[in-house]
Amino acid sequence: MILVNGLQSEHVRVFDRGLTYGDGVFRTLLVRAGHPLCWPRHYDKLYADCAALDIVCPPEAILAAEMAQLIAGYPLLNPLPRTGEEANVKGACFDLDCVLKVIITRGESQRGYAISAHMEPTRILMASPAPQYPANYLTDGVRLHLCSTRLAIQPLLAGIKHLNRLENVLARREWNNSEIAEGLMLDMDGNAIEGTMSNLFLLRGKTLHTPDLGRCGVAGVQRERIMDLAGRLGMTVRVENLPLARIYDADEVVLCNSIIGVWQARELAGKTWPTGKLAARLRSLLDDDGH
Amino acid sequence: MILVNGLQSEHVRVFDRGLTYGDGVFRTLLVRAGHPLCWPRHYDKLYADCAALDIVCPPEAILAAEMAQLIAGYPLLNPLPRTGEEANVKGACFDLDCVLKVIITRGESQRGYAISAHMEPTRILMASPAPQYPANYLTDGVRLHLCSTRLAIQPLLAGIKHLNRLENVLARREWNNSEIAEGLMLDMDGNAIEGTMSNLFLLRGKTLHTPDLGRCGVAGVQRERIMDLAGRLGMTVRVENLPLARIYDADEVVLCNSIIGVWQARELAGKTWPTGKLAARLRSLLDDDGH
Repeated sequence: MILVNGLQSEHVRVFDRGLTYGDGVFRTLLVRAGHPLCWPRHYDKLYADCAALDIVCPPEAILAAEMAQLIAGYPLLNPLPRTGEEANVKGACFDLDCVLKVIITRGESQRGYAISAHMEPTRILMASPAPQYPANYLTDGVRLHLCSTRLAIQPLLAGIKHLNRLENVLARREWNNSEIAEGLMLDMDGNAIEGTMSNLFLLRGKTLHTPDLGRCGVAGVQRERIMDLAGRLGMTVRVENLPLARIYDADEVVLCNSIIGVWQARELAGKTWPTGKLAARLRSLLDDDGH
Repeated sequence: MILVNGLQSEHVRVFDRGLTYGDGVFRTLLVRAGHPLCWPRHYDKLYADCAALDIVCPPEAILAAEMAQLIAGYPLLNPLPRTGEEANVKGACFDLDCVLKVIITRGESQRGYAISAHMEPTRILMASPAPQYPANYLTDGVRLHLCSTRLAIQPLLAGIKHLNRLENVLARREWNNSEIAEGLMLDMDGNAIEGTMSNLFLLRGKTLHTPDLGRCGVAGVQRERIMDLAGRLGMTVRVENLPLARIYDADEVVLCNSIIGVWQARELAGKTWPTGKLAARLRSLLDDDGH
């Protein structure tokens, strides 16, 4: 089910600058038991990303109402089974209704990059089935591919979850081994920045380190939550440049986003890590905080 | 008039990766007296850009047939007047029917950056009125804004006319003075690369210099033609890094694309150039070469 500017539709017009220039932003979030998780944070980020590009973000009330309409109408197909093993994994994605994707584009215009003062943004809300990752991604961690596609340095777009995502597309194209769950991306200077669809933390002693996203990368909501909450685990968080060697030297490495939750990295380019406790602790932390 | 995958339509589906990721490429070309100018070169570039992103480019015959259909159906509204002055300007855009834009996206997919082997590209052909720039842009040259938005270094995407165009959008947002025709963009290292919608040449003695587009920028068809033909004017062409100071030191600076033809730069950030002959000579060169 899809709503485009509040109406059921699967289409946008070809004049939409989201199509012609990737001129827009988006969010992806989970719906659990009818409740869009962490929506206030997602809306804040959507608003900030729109503002960074001078796009008029639709009011929260409009998006919330349309989300509710979408969720109410979404068919609860294939509810996930709760096996005994899964039920013991704290933070596993039970009772998931769907994934919501919210796209806001600058709206429609004729040819040309220039923006007029009267552009009406386009809002697109889509519900789709929650992905069903292998259960052992949570218990055992995941294997990572080290991407050769590097992230370009562009401070004006850094942190924004915008629609110019060709680097991610090229990076994801680098592997088709289904045993590899995610790819680690470096910037042009060799700093580890993020996964193709996730943010990155490493643990060293009692300090969580996460890459500085001031020059490239997407600053996700789960990253922000972990940064806000890590103190409860007695951890401090440092935001800094993390050359690849720092990843290999870490006690533990984890990836996070709003859909996967938190996954431990178990293998990267020949380096392996033993099963650690960080991913599970962070999942508990996020779950206990509520949404 | 618009054709989407050969059918009259103004719409694409919201699953199209052109919208969700900017995962596609495009061309913009002039139609004069029913003839799409330089189409073979445009198709070659479209094909090469698709190949660089591993997108299946539609066959030339299909696109050519759809262009012909579009052109035949395009209403010849508001034919441009030929004033005496304009008729004397070689290369002025007379007898223009319209501008054709061709977009090829990777096609549709569900959420996620991964590409499946079976994606059917989406082809979008749009005809729109030819822009009517002031006649003195051709006779007197144009004023340029020096953009503070820098182009990121990304060799994997450099040269490709892809749909990730937020940098151009941000750069074009920097001025709204209608007396400024174009903006000059530098890369992160301070090299002059291109206009927001055009390529760049400078003349120094008998040598044409044009920026190396191996790390960023869009390699346009008119730039390629000028590089191929400049020998006929007794000029040699050098492709190299051009720090901004090289622009200021140039005898003449010109901008080109398939819609504007060739414009001389008359002013950039306080620096002015006297009216030169290069733009007119390059227009003649391109016109005489045919299409």
